[in-house]
Amino acid sequence: MKVKSPEIKQGIRASDLVEMLGSTAFNARRLGEAAKICKEMVENDSFVFLTVAGAMVPAGMRRIIGGMIENGFVSCLVTTGANVVHEISESLGLGHEIGSPYADDLELAEKNINRIYDVYIKQEAFERIEEFLSQVISELNGFYSSYEFLWEIGKRIEDENSFLRKAWDKKVPVFCPTLHDSIAGLHVTIYRKNLQIDFFKDVNRMIDLCFQKRKMGVIIVGGGVPKNFTLQAMLLAEGFDYAVQITTDSPHWGGLSGATLEEAKSWCKLKPNAKAVTVYCDATIALPLLYAYMLDKSVSRQSEK
Amino acid sequence: MKVKSPEIKQGIRASDLVEMLGSTAFNARRLGEAAKICKEMVENDSFVFLTVAGAMVPAGMRRIIGGMIENGFVSCLVTTGANVVHEISESLGLGHEIGSPYADDLELAEKNINRIYDVYIKQEAFERIEEFLSQVISELNGFYSSYEFLWEIGKRIEDENSFLRKAWDKKVPVFCPTLHDSIAGLHVTIYRKNLQIDFFKDVNRMIDLCFQKRKMGVIIVGGGVPKNFTLQAMLLAEGFDYAVQITTDSPHWGGLSGATLEEAKSWCKLKPNAKAVTVYCDATIALPLLYAYMLDKSVSRQSEK
Amino acid sequence: MKVKSPEIKQGIRASDLVEMLGSTAFNARRLGEAAKICKEMVENDSFVFLTVAGAMVPAGMRRIIGGMIENGFVSCLVTTGANVVHEISESLGLGHEIGSPYADDLELAEKNINRIYDVYIKQEAFERIEEFLSQVISELNGFYSSYEFLWEIGKRIEDENSFLRKAWDKKVPVFCPTLHDSIAGLHVTIYRKNLQIDFFKDVNRMIDLCFQKRKMGVIIVGGGVPKNFTLQAMLLAEGFDYAVQITTDSPHWGGLSGATLEEAKSWCKLKPNAKAVTVYCDATIALPLLYAYMLDKSVSRQSEK
Amino acid sequence: MKVKSPEIKQGIRASDLVEMLGSTAFNARRLGEAAKICKEMVENDSFVFLTVAGAMVPAGMRRIIGGMIENGFVSCLVTTGANVVHEISESLGLGHEIGSPYADDLELAEKNINRIYDVYIKQEAFERIEEFLSQVISELNGFYSSYEFLWEIGKRIEDENSFLRKAWDKKVPVFCPTLHDSIAGLHVTIYRKNLQIDFFKDVNRMIDLCFQKRKMGVIIVGGGVPKNFTLQAMLLAEGFDYAVQITTDSPHWGGLSGATLEEAKSWCKLKPNAKAVTVYCDATIALPLLYAYMLDKSVSRQSEK
Repeated sequence: MKVKSPEIKQGIRASDLVEMLGSTAFNARRLGEAAKICKEMVENDSFVFLTVAGAMVPAGMRRIIGGMIENGFVSCLVTTGANVVHEISESLGLGHEIGSPYADDLELAEKNINRIYDVYIKQEAFERIEEFLSQVISELNGFYSSYEFLWEIGKRIEDENSFLRKAWDKKVPVFCPTLHDSIAGLHVTIYRKNLQIDFFKDVNRMIDLCFQKRKMGVIIVGGGVPKNFTLQAMLLAEGFDYAVQITTDSPHWGGLSGATLEEAKSWCKLKPNAKAVTVYCDATIALPLLYAYMLDKSVSRQSEK
Repeated sequence: MKVKSPEIKQGIRASDLVEMLGSTAFNARRLGEAAKICKEMVENDSFVFLTVAGAMVPAGMRRIIGGMIENGFVSCLVTTGANVVHEISESLGLGHEIGSPYADDLELAEKNINRIYDVYIKQEAFERIEEFLSQVISELNGFYSSYEFLWEIGKRIEDENSFLRKAWDKKVPVFCPTLHDSIAGLHVTIYRKNLQIDFFKDVNRMIDLCFQKRKMGVIIVGGGVPKNFTLQAMLLAEGFDYAVQITTDSPHWGGLSGATLEEAKSWCKLKPNAKAVTVYCDATIALPLLYAYMLDKSVSRQSEK
Repeated sequence: MKVKSPEIKQGIRASDLVEMLGSTAFNARRLGEAAKICKEMVENDSFVFLTVAGAMVPAGMRRIIGGMIENGFVSCLVTTGANVVHEISESLGLGHEIGSPYADDLELAEKNINRIYDVYIKQEAFERIEEFLSQVISELNGFYSSYEFLWEIGKRIEDENSFLRKAWDKKVPVFCPTLHDSIAGLHVTIYRKNLQIDFFKDVNRMIDLCFQKRKMGVIIVGGGVPKNFTLQAMLLAEGFDYAVQITTDSPHWGGLSGATLEEAKSWCKLKPNAKAVTVYCDATIALPLLYAYMLDKSVSRQSEK
Repeated sequence: MKVKSPEIKQGIRASDLVEMLGSTAFNARRLGEAAKICKEMVENDSFVFLTVAGAMVPAGMRRIIGGMIENGFVSCLVTTGANVVHEISESLGLGHEIGSPYADDLELAEKNINRIYDVYIKQEAFERIEEFLSQVISELNGFYSSYEFLWEIGKRIEDENSFLRKAWDKKVPVFCPTLHDSIAGLHVTIYRKNLQIDFFKDVNRMIDLCFQKRKMGVIIVGGGVPKNFTLQAMLLAEGFDYAVQITTDSPHWGGLSGATLEEAKSWCKLKPNAKAVTVYCDATIALPLLYAYMLDKSVSRQSEK
């Protein structure tokens, strides 16, 4: 089949552009292939994990995560403590500021501004989050898995755009195996009384989810613990049928975040014939395009409307 | 200003998505900013260099380059020998095949297939290119700059989608300072009689172009000689007013391809107050999005219609 | 000061070469600077965290980690579940095989070989690890922090080259905030009776360690949770005096693993005047060089002998 | 074969460390393999091209390049205009200053300081280079290939550490296919009278060199035109027997600088059974280590002494 140079016309839809990119090369083609796999996952009624590492919420990706949950594109979210904390910030209306990666960090420190590359968050946002979280934490007792804890958070959030709230509404579990590795983790440490967050309960539940009699899929954004925690849950089951990975890491550094999906087949985390593709791209660009494609092209979903 | 998470709806246009990304973070925001700078360049009737390194033609980007020339978005193209050779392949209808980056290269070699990451080109394509080029080369005598040579190619190409043909039609110069570093260079070496391609003539002409009394802009795709050759031409003049760079290289390796546009200001290649942004992204994804944006959003161009 | 090109002679010592690189540029200079900071940390009797993400143990870095503990270069280790599991494999004499990154992963899967880039580990190694770990796990009751759990492991390891054993011997705490995100985590999930690993206890202990009246330093290998977990522990205290980071990630992707140490100053995780440098390099190359330098050049340590 | 963790002792030689790294993994192992290939090249009396892109001379690598020429490790150098210009600066005693990548580039511009990542060069250095070069250029007439031109430079340089001088002394050709893409290129453009630098003569000579009845090897530092120009010269001959590549680029971006040496086999630029390895590492770190290894371990060379 020939490489086909896209003929882009005025007013082209994002989804049609992604479709065209599937006939080009390099990461444009990979993006096009990822989009088709995502579409197939949805149309086959697969159980889809979305794993999100990296500062995706500060970077403005929360409504895309929320949209994927709302539209039924994903069945389960696995993310980091940081994304949870910053989503709470957004949900409480505190948000994040557009900043500069070239700022003077000592000046920022003096102004009580914390920097995440080109995004700023004020110290006082964390104080408001602390008020909110300390309240929730002090209300809870006993052993919680992280997703049960995050549902407790989600049901207390009023913001309808919050993916934590949407996840609670739709009973989509949100796993956060690194909750303690975040400011929320500091708050749990300080304010808990008899609350235990037992991450081995999470492991158990993740394994259960992997044993369903459905097509199983995973959309991996950025590697890290969310990627490994999800793939390892499949070690005892049959392997994923579909896998899409968006990463800026490279295989040749040898780490898990950059590891190929082929490598995952040696571990039987993916089925031998799994449909799998890695897109090497900043997820802030690739994920919105993928979402726009799924919105427009997923037949099953459109027929629901 | 707040980071704003994009609210993506069904049927969203690529250009509107790019606009939204401008209020997010990381490279999505950089892409949004680059798009706005490109729009401003066009609307201010700037003289715009487009520099293209990397295997953009094999990767299916030729019609975007062609479209940018045709729509008057760029005034001058600076590219590599490889892109010229592969554009001739496309223009002669030989094209490129969709391949795999995981192919067995020894098998490919036996089948006379050459691989460029996930794109294949048959050896026989180069034979047809040789027929075409040897003819042109043998017709030419005397001292040519690379852009004069490429106009001679362009006017002999019938394919209307060829950017070499479009460049000839619109008298847009196409500089190729590394023509000898390509299969076309081998052909010139073999078939020339009294033809001299004098790249120092190119230097001269590039410098002249930099001394125009207009806003000066540059869109840099992928670094390499095209980037440096264009920026150095500005050393004697006043500096670029606008610069957009799409690269997958990083500043911290110290090479020119990854060098920041700020660094270029220390050399006075950009004006102190130049509007400049670097997008870290595979150009096969970023360039089509940028083009779609320019098509939809450039006011001056739309009013022409 | 001038850039000075190294004059390398036959028989040059690794430490002298690293010294020379400090007067060059790019990451060679950064490595030279990192080495000097590490030397100063040791000579000032700082409390030094070593954080290790990435598959450093499968990649053959265990004796360097062990050596750094044994020589008193580091006071505390923070690492991943994977490094713990693979260290147990090494300690039990099962080891890792030299493999190829281009292997056929389906063939490997059939042979029960798991691939980590260019390293192989047989499935049966995990079975032996399971025997070992299930025994330890079933012996333990009550609430453990990860470092207490890992001391229990360390004291049961006979291999004197094991860094888990050395850590136990020298009472150096080894934190593993992602123990559950590993095969050891699966084993804990399966075999525990009344064992709870409470990672919030880890948070508490890490914070305590940050409040010491000593110079505080951190050597960050590869980002991930170990990096963040250590830096966040300093949020409530005064900030690190020294920080060295070895990473292959880049700042411009916006994630924590690639975040600059300057950015950490905006969060007050580093003191405003902290000595800090990032080396962009595969840690399998940079860490042995750094270690060789510390062995040769740290005055305090040599005088101990 | 087992991965073997290096046992590093005080006073370890750089070459012994590199040897040990060959039994580890990731890029440490690749470096160890590259070292062995380089040793074999030298011992087999191969004709070895060294291709150098990137700002290696400003970064302090000139004496390593010079040492490789002097010791007979390389038979031919292919590099960029920038490296030539900066080598002239060093040879004239003007040198480069240690700078900061975080400097204010507008301030630097005002002080007439040009920045190359973390290296500075004063504008007046270029004025002195201009004096020197304008003199040479005005003395020459007729058609020169780039290596003939650079020998003319080399023989006029007094600094014995200059690799241009060493290359002239040992009659090692130095090809610079992008001489016009540099400040030297501007000087040729301005000062030449009847001088023509004919890069197609270079193509011819490079092809001749590829047809020798010896083992053929190439050490590729950093990709770019030097890499392609050398590999393409082999297109008509039988292919390289040995190839070592040091790069920080990645295959998945699809460009030539990051292309694997396997890919080069599909083009028959390498023999099917060529010994080849890519090291993903900043060359400022990897190249000195490789050189130290060759100095200590190359048997043929030592016996010469």
